[in-house]
Amino acid sequence: MKNFFHLVGSSAFADLFREFSELGTETIPLSAALNRYAAQEIVAPTALPPFSRSTMDGYAVRAEDTDNTHQHPPRMLTVTNEIRMGYPGHNIILRAGEAVRIWTGGELPDNADAVIMIEDCRSLDDGKIEIIRTVAPGENIIRAGEDYQRGEFVFGKGTKLCPRYMGVLAGLGITEANVFKRPEVGIISSGDELVEPADSILTGQIRDINSTTLAALVTEAGGIPVPLGIVADNFALLRDTCRAAVNRPVDLLLVSGGSSAGKKDFTQAVFKELDQSDLHERGAAVRPDKPLLIARHENCVLFGLPGHAASAMAVFYLFIRPLLMRFSGANQDGFQRIFVQAGERISATAGLEEYVRVRLIPRKDAQLPLAIPVYGKAGFLRPLLEADGLLVLKAECHVLNQGDMAEVILFS
Amino acid sequence: MKNFFHLVGSSAFADLFREFSELGTETIPLSAALNRYAAQEIVAPTALPPFSRSTMDGYAVRAEDTDNTHQHPPRMLTVTNEIRMGYPGHNIILRAGEAVRIWTGGELPDNADAVIMIEDCRSLDDGKIEIIRTVAPGENIIRAGEDYQRGEFVFGKGTKLCPRYMGVLAGLGITEANVFKRPEVGIISSGDELVEPADSILTGQIRDINSTTLAALVTEAGGIPVPLGIVADNFALLRDTCRAAVNRPVDLLLVSGGSSAGKKDFTQAVFKELDQSDLHERGAAVRPDKPLLIARHENCVLFGLPGHAASAMAVFYLFIRPLLMRFSGANQDGFQRIFVQAGERISATAGLEEYVRVRLIPRKDAQLPLAIPVYGKAGFLRPLLEADGLLVLKAECHVLNQGDMAEVILFS
Repeated sequence: MKNFFHLVGSSAFADLFREFSELGTETIPLSAALNRYAAQEIVAPTALPPFSRSTMDGYAVRAEDTDNTHQHPPRMLTVTNEIRMGYPGHNIILRAGEAVRIWTGGELPDNADAVIMIEDCRSLDDGKIEIIRTVAPGENIIRAGEDYQRGEFVFGKGTKLCPRYMGVLAGLGITEANVFKRPEVGIISSGDELVEPADSILTGQIRDINSTTLAALVTEAGGIPVPLGIVADNFALLRDTCRAAVNRPVDLLLVSGGSSAGKKDFTQAVFKELDQSDLHERGAAVRPDKPLLIARHENCVLFGLPGHAASAMAVFYLFIRPLLMRFSGANQDGFQRIFVQAGERISATAGLEEYVRVRLIPRKDAQLPLAIPVYGKAGFLRPLLEADGLLVLKAECHVLNQGDMAEVILFS
Repeated sequence: MKNFFHLVGSSAFADLFREFSELGTETIPLSAALNRYAAQEIVAPTALPPFSRSTMDGYAVRAEDTDNTHQHPPRMLTVTNEIRMGYPGHNIILRAGEAVRIWTGGELPDNADAVIMIEDCRSLDDGKIEIIRTVAPGENIIRAGEDYQRGEFVFGKGTKLCPRYMGVLAGLGITEANVFKRPEVGIISSGDELVEPADSILTGQIRDINSTTLAALVTEAGGIPVPLGIVADNFALLRDTCRAAVNRPVDLLLVSGGSSAGKKDFTQAVFKELDQSDLHERGAAVRPDKPLLIARHENCVLFGLPGHAASAMAVFYLFIRPLLMRFSGANQDGFQRIFVQAGERISATAGLEEYVRVRLIPRKDAQLPLAIPVYGKAGFLRPLLEADGLLVLKAECHVLNQGDMAEVILFS
């Protein structure tokens, strides 16, 4: 049984997301800002480095004093001073024929224009050094502001504060970060057959998988999961739980399990009652037979997801994660894409953008990984583990032959 | 000034890491286990699904009763029952010519072998349905244990508990996870010139960047950073701080800034005093002029890193992160690799494995990103932001011409 996971209309969703804007901002300690998104452009508050520095252990010199090292007698310089780490060096004046001992990171004397590495000198007894190698002006030094001028653009609004961006902020003396708030995401699993994972199951019952998976996916995408538990297939119960969530308010409400033909009615009816826009009229189609439901209540977006865990996860990566990125103020769409080669022939429905679950086989010698479609009946857990991502089949691409290159949206 | 970041001898390091084994294990609630590493193989404690289920809304049937739908009179079945969600269905007996109403996920009657979708029947007034389409045995159903048999291997020791793996554990009723402990990593920045990021700086001083960057990198790699602050260039101070750290104990101790020729002596002397093995004799060379120091005290590994932030980060990705993966029991090396095309000619030192900082330029139409070397003097912060990763130049590859394919180890 061929059961590709086909989605239709993701670009329509991208258009729809433009109706939403990022959440508010907050200022938090830099140490707590890992992987948050910058709410403002960062410019250098001071020049970096703040003073002209040596990048090596050696001697600060005037480069011209190191010319002609092959002549006789050899070039000698008199060491007049030492610049200790953490102490100023600019008040030292270097005269012709003089050198000053300096360490990596130390401030240069005012008129030094190069540093000669310790390995390129020979230390003599009488406080002199012999120059073995010529240095050019600017060699082994960084001038004040050469890295960043004061007021210069460092990085933009919406940048994810990865470790290296945090390091740069620390280096600039910025110890509080102005970031976008994290979206709060309510998570409901609906279905009379569902029980908590810790419960023992009776015949006909099944453990709730989506609450766990979706909470972890939300966390990973930078959101705050708000678990709202299992709700039976009952209109009033589902409506009241959803209403409490949107009044809390959460920024996004995920209701999984309500999209099979039988249960869809509840979720659709609840969304219709809560919706204040026409969003619920414009859901994207997901095949086979998995309509997505979407609605809006004030600033909260309500999503109806398939109940099958593997389908719910695919919908999360394709639609929910990009929306979370938008709420979070991120300057990226949240897709982690890689290139692959089709490991076998993969055919699509003409004229529709489709996504095929694939596993990836890494190869040696700088060859792209091979993508192999993962078959599996709807409702199987196995594809959750076996598939590494979703291969993108563009609308204009009817078939991918073995060896053709394609793009895959990676699962984490 | 061409300043590639060249590292030599990473494979020697990989050999060295084999001397270390993973940390101990602990059992924690599943909800707290995101991105931890499984300490044992997972086998299915029960069959999945635990009972034979429908994957569609429709009617449970005996497939043979849906044959020959083109004949006259049309095939009709009598609907005798409905299986409500969460209730057993196996005690219902289906006789020839009978069908039972069923919903997605519902348990099948004992002798039903297929489900006909609601869209493929016509409901008639007298409790009968007309069959429009033939279904094959097994269609629209999953048999008990068809996804996982009881006792079947699900995933292996060392697997990272990503969202989808957590979902599978929930589905199996495993709500406590046996995982490897997170490595604790002490972080020291050494140097008389360093001040805290929040402090104002005097001439000759510079803000400590590595404490922030390394703590964030450790967190991201799943470790627990233990910030130990700035230590001046003083043998006794550094020794006492390191000794306190290894006695705490931390699993890994990172001392940055002690690897320039002038400062290396302190760190090297401290490591030599604390080392209980011959590790400190076997550090990998890092060019230009950045020897790595490494030592071992009981189960703690001590690392001396370059002081320059961009170099320290590269060393983290190449050496520290893989070691953290090993301590964490991960079945992966921690490198996130992608393929690229060289955007310009990149030459290497013959016979040495080298790593070149590159930025990546994404391209459309399923073309690999272009990798452009990032030049920048040692000590610049800019390459921290501009470089997206390290391009790997194998020892046998002297030169990469424009357009050649290569591998890049991505920064996060």
